[in-house]
Amino acid sequence: MNTNFEELKTYIERQTALGTAISMLHWDNETLAPKEAIKNTSGIIGILSGEYYHAAVNDRVMELLDLLLEGKEQETLDWKEKAIVHTMAKDIDIIKKIPAKEYMEFQELTSEAASIWAKAKQTNDFSSYLPTLDKIIQTLKRFAKYRVKPGQSSYDMMLNDYEEGFTTKELDIFFGKIRETVVPLLKKQKEKQPVNKAYNERYYAKDKQAEFGRFLAEYVGFDFQRGVLAESEHPFTMEFHNHDVRITTHYLENNLESSIFSIIHEAGHGLYEMGVQDALTLTPVGHGTSMGMHESQSRFFENMLGRSRSFWVPIWDRLQNTFQESLADVTLDQFIAGINKAEPDFIRTESDELTYSLHIMVRYELERMIFNNELETKDLPAAWNEKYQEYLGITPPTDTLGVLQDLHWSGGSFGYFPSYAIGNAVAAQLYHYMDQKLPMEKLLEEGNIAPIREFLRENVHQWGMTKTTNEMLMEITGEPLNVEYYITYLTKKYGE
Amino acid sequence: MNTNFEELKTYIERQTALGTAISMLHWDNETLAPKEAIKNTSGIIGILSGEYYHAAVNDRVMELLDLLLEGKEQETLDWKEKAIVHTMAKDIDIIKKIPAKEYMEFQELTSEAASIWAKAKQTNDFSSYLPTLDKIIQTLKRFAKYRVKPGQSSYDMMLNDYEEGFTTKELDIFFGKIRETVVPLLKKQKEKQPVNKAYNERYYAKDKQAEFGRFLAEYVGFDFQRGVLAESEHPFTMEFHNHDVRITTHYLENNLESSIFSIIHEAGHGLYEMGVQDALTLTPVGHGTSMGMHESQSRFFENMLGRSRSFWVPIWDRLQNTFQESLADVTLDQFIAGINKAEPDFIRTESDELTYSLHIMVRYELERMIFNNELETKDLPAAWNEKYQEYLGITPPTDTLGVLQDLHWSGGSFGYFPSYAIGNAVAAQLYHYMDQKLPMEKLLEEGNIAPIREFLRENVHQWGMTKTTNEMLMEITGEPLNVEYYITYLTKKYGE
Repeated sequence: MNTNFEELKTYIERQTALGTAISMLHWDNETLAPKEAIKNTSGIIGILSGEYYHAAVNDRVMELLDLLLEGKEQETLDWKEKAIVHTMAKDIDIIKKIPAKEYMEFQELTSEAASIWAKAKQTNDFSSYLPTLDKIIQTLKRFAKYRVKPGQSSYDMMLNDYEEGFTTKELDIFFGKIRETVVPLLKKQKEKQPVNKAYNERYYAKDKQAEFGRFLAEYVGFDFQRGVLAESEHPFTMEFHNHDVRITTHYLENNLESSIFSIIHEAGHGLYEMGVQDALTLTPVGHGTSMGMHESQSRFFENMLGRSRSFWVPIWDRLQNTFQESLADVTLDQFIAGINKAEPDFIRTESDELTYSLHIMVRYELERMIFNNELETKDLPAAWNEKYQEYLGITPPTDTLGVLQDLHWSGGSFGYFPSYAIGNAVAAQLYHYMDQKLPMEKLLEEGNIAPIREFLRENVHQWGMTKTTNEMLMEITGEPLNVEYYITYLTKKYGE
Repeated sequence: MNTNFEELKTYIERQTALGTAISMLHWDNETLAPKEAIKNTSGIIGILSGEYYHAAVNDRVMELLDLLLEGKEQETLDWKEKAIVHTMAKDIDIIKKIPAKEYMEFQELTSEAASIWAKAKQTNDFSSYLPTLDKIIQTLKRFAKYRVKPGQSSYDMMLNDYEEGFTTKELDIFFGKIRETVVPLLKKQKEKQPVNKAYNERYYAKDKQAEFGRFLAEYVGFDFQRGVLAESEHPFTMEFHNHDVRITTHYLENNLESSIFSIIHEAGHGLYEMGVQDALTLTPVGHGTSMGMHESQSRFFENMLGRSRSFWVPIWDRLQNTFQESLADVTLDQFIAGINKAEPDFIRTESDELTYSLHIMVRYELERMIFNNELETKDLPAAWNEKYQEYLGITPPTDTLGVLQDLHWSGGSFGYFPSYAIGNAVAAQLYHYMDQKLPMEKLLEEGNIAPIREFLRENVHQWGMTKTTNEMLMEITGEPLNVEYYITYLTKKYGE
């Protein structure tokens, strides 16, 4: 037992406890808190963020980390402890460059911003959100100045926070390939007989959606003894530790797919966090390894599994029985065609697999322009609409259906969106390999998700942040991330 | 502006933020958290309690308080600041006598205990709860030793924490008077024609109860822009600040009264906290002044208003229409007779006004025996049942209906129960006076609760802890707490 590491653990506990408290307040804000609470509560979040900052950026912590990073001390640590020390040092290195006061103010700002954004979205009023969004962007630009390395662009630095090693250079190539594939495939779709999915807009009672959604989450393995499903404006996952993982959805009474696929998606995230081993939870390496890997798990469940025919074979009857009045005249095959219909539409989270990455490209390019000072915050709505016209051939009729649709920017998450596209690619690569190892379709048709989930738990989930995305891909598939699997997947699915 | 006080404010903010975070975790545990979360989450609560402890018991804070308590410095403070300094000094004086480690461990223990208690109650298994309850009691006995003044009994000291100035001496006189009144009145009830309230055990759908309960909370003035109504095992109120006040209830499908009166009761607590003025919220004096005064507000709404005929005149139709199938053959007068039926029963929270104080007496006497070392924890169930037989003439058939019914002890709240009886007396005294100032019955019959609520807000709620219970009673009624109003109230109500 290394005494320095033992001492470090007491600091880790403090930091983790404060981090959990802050997350809990955010969770509550998004799911339950009364409207008028937000101002006081954001102040409280600001103060707790200050405590968190000082628990991390602390002379003794940094001293202990320096000691533990030395060769001799390193040797006395096990693999988990080593990973903790490295990750903690890296995290503190980021945060310490930002002055405590600015850090606190930013946490308070983004906490309040969530409700300002939600209200602006509800009322289609970008102008009421503009000052807040602009303040977030200006703060992030300032933070970038504190942190950026010589020769690095601000946006590259931000991308790296979410997906290590990915810069605009890699992403341009990555998105270039996707674009080359998707655009002709989309054209091809238009030539095909149009799929009628009018059924999806019939009436689906909220309480029945909630009942079926809960079943569905459990069906893919979400454990309600360790998890919660709640409602929020925008679906998300939030984890406190591996025994308390929360997912949310929203129920739209005239859109059956919306809650179904957001629940499978968030359950995918949730399974990742529930699968982290006990020895890692509540430590700095106790979460998913990167945003890209996280999105690979959610998109794997949502799309690779959730949109396949095999997945629905055992549970189609149940879905049809739950919504007899609206689904009586719909066949399984019509439903499968419906949930895989590719057609440009406004909302990213409701979009099909083929157009999805185009939604991401719009955000990626706009973010880059903002942080390269090529676009002002006030001009975002117009730029957004132009890009949608350019890539998807449609122009959002309102900002609610356009630039206001996602919550990410209100939380200060710029550089996150590309993770969704990376996640799609990782998911396709994993599926390709797993399909050789496991009888995937047969398992799905038998309603036996457990072996699939266990494979992911064994090879991905349990490791938390102790392995990188590429390390795990190497171990599982024998190669690092390779976008070709995703290209092949899309081509096969939408080209036939 | 006093610079010492300005510095003190930064410590207050930290302490308040940490306290709020801990409360939020408790709220979540009671209302939403998944079952298996509790162990990790309790550890987190323990660590945050340590942070809270050190934010309070802090050399600089105590130095500042000493400075601010001096005559000259005092003069520069306004009435709010003075109250803050005094309350803070008193709070710290209590907490600092307990070693930090023991304080943290106790917070962790009581956090876990809540779920152990809930499970034991559900399964009628006192033995599974006994080790935890005993540990809580032994810890409180040890804490009492640290804190008790010469010549003071442990239990007197604990009573004082909840209601300043009340000792077993006052309470013995207080309960003696109540007992003298209630016992003959109860006998008299038995001689009367029995009230048939079989209607109360018909079927009342949970979602309709929730709908009516929400209406009812709003009807008495609970503001859902600043508050939340949720479900929990045992109804309670928890406030974060005056813009975020939470109440809970439980819905029993074969007991209409249960949710109705617990919602009015908790809304009474909630209105108190919502009524605290902005300048006091999020400070050490930003809550209700004592548990007795708090219970006076909840019992005032629940009983003085909520069980009166006038209260139901304007909303009886709505209740009847909500539950047509079960209430169609019930008249308003039958309902009023039903909700005021006095009859010994097992559960305190469901009991009538006449027997209520007897339930409290049982707990008061058992608590005193425990802290006088006259009763061991393991013997609580038998002693409980004996007392029920002695005071109420009934013996609980199970511990679920007996010693396991209340959550208070699992949270370490010994000495709290008498506050309910004190609250009844305060409520009766307030009502007596208000009835002379305001046309109470007429207002209720017109469905105009606002003037009643405003009177309480003006005279009680807004002041937070800056005035004591007796100071407010003096100002409002011209005398300190006087149990005679309650005696007269019960005699008039149940003697006629």
